[in-house]
Amino acid sequence: MKKVLIINGANLNLLGVREPEIYGDKSLDEIIAMLQKEFPLCIIDEKRSNIEGEIIEAVQMADNLFDGVVINAGAYTHTSVGIRDAIAAVRVPVIEVHISNVASREFFRSKSLLSSVCKGTISGFGIQSYKLAVYSLLNM
Amino acid sequence: MKKVLIINGANLNLLGVREPEIYGDKSLDEIIAMLQKEFPLCIIDEKRSNIEGEIIEAVQMADNLFDGVVINAGAYTHTSVGIRDAIAAVRVPVIEVHISNVASREFFRSKSLLSSVCKGTISGFGIQSYKLAVYSLLNM
Amino acid sequence: MKKVLIINGANLNLLGVREPEIYGDKSLDEIIAMLQKEFPLCIIDEKRSNIEGEIIEAVQMADNLFDGVVINAGAYTHTSVGIRDAIAAVRVPVIEVHISNVASREFFRSKSLLSSVCKGTISGFGIQSYKLAVYSLLNM
Amino acid sequence: MKKVLIINGANLNLLGVREPEIYGDKSLDEIIAMLQKEFPLCIIDEKRSNIEGEIIEAVQMADNLFDGVVINAGAYTHTSVGIRDAIAAVRVPVIEVHISNVASREFFRSKSLLSSVCKGTISGFGIQSYKLAVYSLLNM
Amino acid sequence: MKKVLIINGANLNLLGVREPEIYGDKSLDEIIAMLQKEFPLCIIDEKRSNIEGEIIEAVQMADNLFDGVVINAGAYTHTSVGIRDAIAAVRVPVIEVHISNVASREFFRSKSLLSSVCKGTISGFGIQSYKLAVYSLLNM
Amino acid sequence: MKKVLIINGANLNLLGVREPEIYGDKSLDEIIAMLQKEFPLCIIDEKRSNIEGEIIEAVQMADNLFDGVVINAGAYTHTSVGIRDAIAAVRVPVIEVHISNVASREFFRSKSLLSSVCKGTISGFGIQSYKLAVYSLLNM
Amino acid sequence: MKKVLIINGANLNLLGVREPEIYGDKSLDEIIAMLQKEFPLCIIDEKRSNIEGEIIEAVQMADNLFDGVVINAGAYTHTSVGIRDAIAAVRVPVIEVHISNVASREFFRSKSLLSSVCKGTISGFGIQSYKLAVYSLLNM
Amino acid sequence: MKKVLIINGANLNLLGVREPEIYGDKSLDEIIAMLQKEFPLCIIDEKRSNIEGEIIEAVQMADNLFDGVVINAGAYTHTSVGIRDAIAAVRVPVIEVHISNVASREFFRSKSLLSSVCKGTISGFGIQSYKLAVYSLLNM
Amino acid sequence: MKKVLIINGANLNLLGVREPEIYGDKSLDEIIAMLQKEFPLCIIDEKRSNIEGEIIEAVQMADNLFDGVVINAGAYTHTSVGIRDAIAAVRVPVIEVHISNVASREFFRSKSLLSSVCKGTISGFGIQSYKLAVYSLLNM
Amino acid sequence: MKKVLIINGANLNLLGVREPEIYGDKSLDEIIAMLQKEFPLCIIDEKRSNIEGEIIEAVQMADNLFDGVVINAGAYTHTSVGIRDAIAAVRVPVIEVHISNVASREFFRSKSLLSSVCKGTISGFGIQSYKLAVYSLLNM
Amino acid sequence: MKKVLIINGANLNLLGVREPEIYGDKSLDEIIAMLQKEFPLCIIDEKRSNIEGEIIEAVQMADNLFDGVVINAGAYTHTSVGIRDAIAAVRVPVIEVHISNVASREFFRSKSLLSSVCKGTISGFGIQSYKLAVYSLLNM
Amino acid sequence: MKKVLIINGANLNLLGVREPEIYGDKSLDEIIAMLQKEFPLCIIDEKRSNIEGEIIEAVQMADNLFDGVVINAGAYTHTSVGIRDAIAAVRVPVIEVHISNVASREFFRSKSLLSSVCKGTISGFGIQSYKLAVYSLLNM
Repeated sequence: MKKVLIINGANLNLLGVREPEIYGDKSLDEIIAMLQKEFPLCIIDEKRSNIEGEIIEAVQMADNLFDGVVINAGAYTHTSVGIRDAIAAVRVPVIEVHISNVASREFFRSKSLLSSVCKGTISGFGIQSYKLAVYSLLNM
Repeated sequence: MKKVLIINGANLNLLGVREPEIYGDKSLDEIIAMLQKEFPLCIIDEKRSNIEGEIIEAVQMADNLFDGVVINAGAYTHTSVGIRDAIAAVRVPVIEVHISNVASREFFRSKSLLSSVCKGTISGFGIQSYKLAVYSLLNM
Repeated sequence: MKKVLIINGANLNLLGVREPEIYGDKSLDEIIAMLQKEFPLCIIDEKRSNIEGEIIEAVQMADNLFDGVVINAGAYTHTSVGIRDAIAAVRVPVIEVHISNVASREFFRSKSLLSSVCKGTISGFGIQSYKLAVYSLLNM
Repeated sequence: MKKVLIINGANLNLLGVREPEIYGDKSLDEIIAMLQKEFPLCIIDEKRSNIEGEIIEAVQMADNLFDGVVINAGAYTHTSVGIRDAIAAVRVPVIEVHISNVASREFFRSKSLLSSVCKGTISGFGIQSYKLAVYSLLNM
Repeated sequence: MKKVLIINGANLNLLGVREPEIYGDKSLDEIIAMLQKEFPLCIIDEKRSNIEGEIIEAVQMADNLFDGVVINAGAYTHTSVGIRDAIAAVRVPVIEVHISNVASREFFRSKSLLSSVCKGTISGFGIQSYKLAVYSLLNM
Repeated sequence: MKKVLIINGANLNLLGVREPEIYGDKSLDEIIAMLQKEFPLCIIDEKRSNIEGEIIEAVQMADNLFDGVVINAGAYTHTSVGIRDAIAAVRVPVIEVHISNVASREFFRSKSLLSSVCKGTISGFGIQSYKLAVYSLLNM
Repeated sequence: MKKVLIINGANLNLLGVREPEIYGDKSLDEIIAMLQKEFPLCIIDEKRSNIEGEIIEAVQMADNLFDGVVINAGAYTHTSVGIRDAIAAVRVPVIEVHISNVASREFFRSKSLLSSVCKGTISGFGIQSYKLAVYSLLNM
Repeated sequence: MKKVLIINGANLNLLGVREPEIYGDKSLDEIIAMLQKEFPLCIIDEKRSNIEGEIIEAVQMADNLFDGVVINAGAYTHTSVGIRDAIAAVRVPVIEVHISNVASREFFRSKSLLSSVCKGTISGFGIQSYKLAVYSLLNM
Repeated sequence: MKKVLIINGANLNLLGVREPEIYGDKSLDEIIAMLQKEFPLCIIDEKRSNIEGEIIEAVQMADNLFDGVVINAGAYTHTSVGIRDAIAAVRVPVIEVHISNVASREFFRSKSLLSSVCKGTISGFGIQSYKLAVYSLLNM
Repeated sequence: MKKVLIINGANLNLLGVREPEIYGDKSLDEIIAMLQKEFPLCIIDEKRSNIEGEIIEAVQMADNLFDGVVINAGAYTHTSVGIRDAIAAVRVPVIEVHISNVASREFFRSKSLLSSVCKGTISGFGIQSYKLAVYSLLNM
Repeated sequence: MKKVLIINGANLNLLGVREPEIYGDKSLDEIIAMLQKEFPLCIIDEKRSNIEGEIIEAVQMADNLFDGVVINAGAYTHTSVGIRDAIAAVRVPVIEVHISNVASREFFRSKSLLSSVCKGTISGFGIQSYKLAVYSLLNM
Repeated sequence: MKKVLIINGANLNLLGVREPEIYGDKSLDEIIAMLQKEFPLCIIDEKRSNIEGEIIEAVQMADNLFDGVVINAGAYTHTSVGIRDAIAAVRVPVIEVHISNVASREFFRSKSLLSSVCKGTISGFGIQSYKLAVYSLLNM
């Protein structure tokens, strides 16, 4: 059985509450439950934090314990060289996901510091983005 | 049965031949065949062209004839306002895909003019990017 | 009798269909018919294409056959050095028109590569922009 | 009868004298007279000033007294956020005109702060630009 | 008794009329009256002008006659080095106010040339911005 | 009674010690005490942290528990998209304050990522900035 | 006898009062008197205004009445396309002067819009800059 | 015998007609004839098109059929990532030529997207540029 | 005996593991041990954290307890205004070190926000950079 | 008697020969002779070199031997931080001169690295620029 | 017999030694000998220097003594306005050559200050670039 | 015994005289003597020049004769691609030093062209920077 870690960063603990017309009405707990249900032969674990350094450490620790990482770093996507360096330092494949289509939003959100060191990026499919990411990890 | 149009733009007719270490060794014909086989309950059609205007017209015509479009515009991703306008003008959902991780390549390839008007973007999964895109269309 | 060529570029074949709140509900055929009716003593011909190279050639060919050209290059307005060079190469006066007020739209639409080599520019008057352009050519 | 106000800004009082190869040899008085003669069923009034604040006030006052405004703000086109705000604040349609083709001149003249809040822009037709603008107002 | 001068610049004479959803429905006269009523032990005087040079002179003259200045320069906030130099030249404390939250508006409004030479800036509180400014001057 | 949360970010725990000629000689404890004394009918609470993620969470938690928030994010003002997103996600009004006049300091301090999502900004009044902010919240 | 017009712009009426360590302690009246005394065989006239439009008109009017113009436009040096256009439109030689060394001051003061259309520029010599300018006009 | 393909892009079909003071008075037919005459032991073939996609395909097809390619892409030099990708994808050596000295012309012509993937670049020698390019291919 | 604090930031806990060809094969523990051995007459203490706010606090606390600080902030070097402000606020001399030659790496790593407020910078000497830094502190 | 050193840099040894319509037809020898004749009570010496380092040394050596320096560094004006540093290091007043009006020439000539460390700048008066500079030195 | 001067600038004296995989293994002496042998009816002379000013003077002196100049300025290509001015000042045709394809190298090498004033540019053909340049001079 | 060459560039011959509050009061001779005394088992040689080309040649010549180079290029640090190329071309390790903390000085001094090709950089330690550099070379 493959083990996948879902990492969620800044303000994603508000999912289901914050601007539901953009981010949907599912909470993070519901999303994790949906993923586990969708992929029963896979072990889904998760880490959520608003602190950049804790996300860095979650990526670091995933290297030996998981077969794949799905990361939605939230606002840190656009500002964190530290998370980028952590992803570049590990061997486990990391998939970047975004719920909304970040390319159609504010200018300062148009650049992801993480994309170039991730295995791939999936953006704009709502919470389905997470599903596509896990699906891609299981099919590698 | 859902109908999906796969549009491939500049130099993608060279797939399998051009820089296989980046783009893989599958030809476009093989990719289309693989998609049809993977999704037997879906009608896969395709349009390939090196001419920007023909891609614009393929997007325009898809509007009434298909349930979804998967587009890999190749180099036109970074230069074509015309394809962007065509995507914005149609109601059919359009998914942008890239075989390689464009974010880790040359600077002039870092900006997609298409992303903000597409439903979503999938980048970096090799030819699996196409599969994820069709999969997402069928699950909408 | 003066002869005027109306050239329409990328996605203008969708006029009347695409975003009518911006571009109006008149098709290109109806606009051409309206112009011919408005200026009965003038021969109105037209060329429409989504292909940049065909627009280049339409400008080239107009040089000896027409007394004036009205061009709405659509998206190519902002990306085509080739159409610019064609306009600069011909002696026939060329008027640039836009249906919408391009200055109030997206940033990448704020710069026209064509304006500086056209005789004049008319922007923002809806389909009346075409009429003003033909009118100006007849009064030169 | 429709009432139209023609506003002329910085250095346009020199028309006919200043660089006639660019701006023509007609004075502002002659242009106004020509417009009145060309459109006898329309009341043409005018305001000319080199002072930015007086142009702001001319736009403000036109709102209730005129059916349309034609403005050539001269150099203030490129520097005045104040005139822009005045145009945005009024309901009367405002048409921006330029005698020369500003797009083919110095870099600092390539951007108009006014275009995006005007109804439309007409540029490059010599003094005929004014005529086209009044003509467009009468045909709204 | 302290004397405070309220200076209002470009288009602020339209307050209560222009875009009330942004600027509120109070006229400038009503705002001045409200301030005088709110701070009865303070002499409130005002200068309003659409002319940059008159605002420069209002700042210059306030130096010896007032104990504090509250300035809302309107559009000149973003373009006037001259008003900036006047504020830098006087000893009387000057407070910059804005009715709307300028940081959330157009790009060209995001930079104030005046802030760095004013004592402080208050922005986004509607007409209450003026009240906070006078309040701060009285508490210095 | 209204409840107001005062949030202080990076290095503001050094107030009274760090560069007193810029930031004054009052400690954060003294400022909070002064605010409570100044507004006896209001409940003043505070959160201070040098960790970006803890500030994000303080903003999130304030949404249901407080009637207003006053935030001085210190250096995070200029780098934190995460705090910006948190402020945009909550309904409680948030006021941005700065002790010094940030506009007159280093270039990288000239842009606030927070201003455009706050209700208003008050900058440059020393520790009085906090007082004006609470005052404005009580008068909404 | 040669006639020279000295034009002084924004805030230069404060000379001798404003920041004397930068601009010296001589008033504008004293400078004009000094120039007249230094060049007794030359008629020195002057125009001073804080209003951009009045400086434009002073330049326009100088064309037929004076043999040379010395202009210190103050802050308008860096923002006025209108004064630039006026200088470009006249035939009388115009010399740009600055009291301080503008190149060593703030960034936004580093670019003069006027220099390229003036005959020459003299900067940094204190009030002696005016003297050198008149001297150069008399020696043409 | 070596086989060389000469590719000419946008507006080069106008050679001999368009701006002869820049591009010379020789037609493209005459240039090809001159090259064939100059290099009798070499087979010269040519492709001319105003359509970007056809130039892409000409480069693609040359890979197996020719020993070298000489390309003058005209305006597409500065805008076509697609032609660049085609050149990078083929093994046949490609030489970029320009008739005029592009470095001394308009700003938007100063950057070639093609140079970095071509074997070499020859610019500014009039129609002799083509001759030098063929000469270099024969001497490889 | 002098006391020196060694602060290590983002991802430096991976030293010896992460990309050893760039960062060497020594762990942070080994480096600290090496420093203590090299400088037996000096007390070497250390703080390592992936959390920006904890590094800010380490710098703050060092002010009274240590005679010098050596800081390698890792990725925070390029993004943290907060650490910069902390260094500027303390009196203890702070030396910035980098293991690799950051100037020869990615563009976003070319600018250090910390350098201008540190006493000095040492970059590119592998783990010897730390030794040179301690050496320099002991020789002040 | 005052001693003045005239330093001329890159390509100024061609004066009188190179582009006389811009630089005049006087050789450097003639200019020096003219200056000596014009100011008989002053000792005029000169240094001319095309080598940046020799100009640096000429400035250095002038410090103790001359009462003033007039420098026309030619092209080094726009590229030499070294000459700038030399001027900043000496106490002797240095005047920057230019024969042509550099502000009206190519973009890369619009910025002088030297102006901000010179006493003053005189530009655009032909060879009279030298005379005005010596004149200003004698009147300090 | 035609006389051609070959000028080589910064670090080209290292040819054959420095990075032979980029610059080839021929020394400058061998290249000059090869050129003389290849073009026996032409007199080949050469100047090599690492000093910018000596290259300026070599260009100046070539004007009357040679029929053509071939220049490879090395690093000065990208930084020397002085060499540019020298080339612009002489009448002898100057051809710019580069051994490597500079367009495919570092960003700061992408702009040549010399190209726009040279007759033509040849880049990327190894030491054959020199041969093509001499060949072009002999065929003018 | 190891041999180390100390290279000093533009204006460093003024050390001890020029701005001693920044550069210290030691002359270059004294610094060299100090280094020789500090490292008696090492042969210290030096080259000082204000001429860029001579510094290039000093680096070139050091390659076979020295075991290490310490370079302070002064102003050439920020402008010389030529010295950069020389350092990249040699095998001897080169250490870049600066006396002052260049990061805290003028903007145009913030970028070193040399750092990315040097072994390491040491900046801000006064003349001790030289000592640390020699120390690092001896410990390689």
